[in-house]
Amino acid sequence: MDQRLSLITLGVADVDVARRFYERLGWRVGLDVQETVFFQAGGMIVGLWGRDRLAADSGVKDGGGWGGITLAHNVASAGEVDRVIEEARAAGARITREPAATFYGGYAGVFVDPDGHAWEIAHNPGFPLGDDGSITLPPG
Amino acid sequence: MDQRLSLITLGVADVDVARRFYERLGWRVGLDVQETVFFQAGGMIVGLWGRDRLAADSGVKDGGGWGGITLAHNVASAGEVDRVIEEARAAGARITREPAATFYGGYAGVFVDPDGHAWEIAHNPGFPLGDDGSITLPPG
Repeated sequence: MDQRLSLITLGVADVDVARRFYERLGWRVGLDVQETVFFQAGGMIVGLWGRDRLAADSGVKDGGGWGGITLAHNVASAGEVDRVIEEARAAGARITREPAATFYGGYAGVFVDPDGHAWEIAHNPGFPLGDDGSITLPPG
Repeated sequence: MDQRLSLITLGVADVDVARRFYERLGWRVGLDVQETVFFQAGGMIVGLWGRDRLAADSGVKDGGGWGGITLAHNVASAGEVDRVIEEARAAGARITREPAATFYGGYAGVFVDPDGHAWEIAHNPGFPLGDDGSITLPPG
């Protein structure tokens, strides 16, 4: 299995409501088909689909709330962390960790989208960002 | 907020056990620091961290099982889907959907890792794959 991720699907209560939340953050839908919305996100894709259908399609039992996965969106400065967290707050997200210095020498905050999916917005000077938005681990 | 994802962290019961599972799939750790393991995955990063710590760090209440996120790894052919699903089975994954034709004209199966994280292994001829492993939405 190659070491890469192609697509991440977020199960949501209402695809239109979730879509509008991400659109308020400035995201633009690339494909809207069969009650699924897809965003091109760098070299991968983020999808929104009904959570019940996603659980059934994945062959799993839904535990209810958060299920052990947190997403992160890294940015180039602490100021950008503050800006994105404020954008998320204005878009209706719940801020579960206000931006602050982190134990790894960075600066980050966390918002939770209307369906409970957690996004850390982070500035981590140890993980360089490319001009194309890619992120690279430092040499081990 | 730019339209991209930098890092996805999978909360796990035991980082070493989870690490060995992904290593059996052929993944190689890029950074192992402070009880967190990171894999470079194309232009993004996949991390493994203790699920309790991740929940606390994210400011969320853990619902227990699956929490509404399914990952996907797309490949270039139906045969590759079969091969990766067999690799995952051999590595100790539970197969929650055996590979089969999909409603969208592709071919896919799903495995669940030892911590309950669901991976769809998919061949979707409508979503082209680049030589670098990137995936691109078709024109809307």
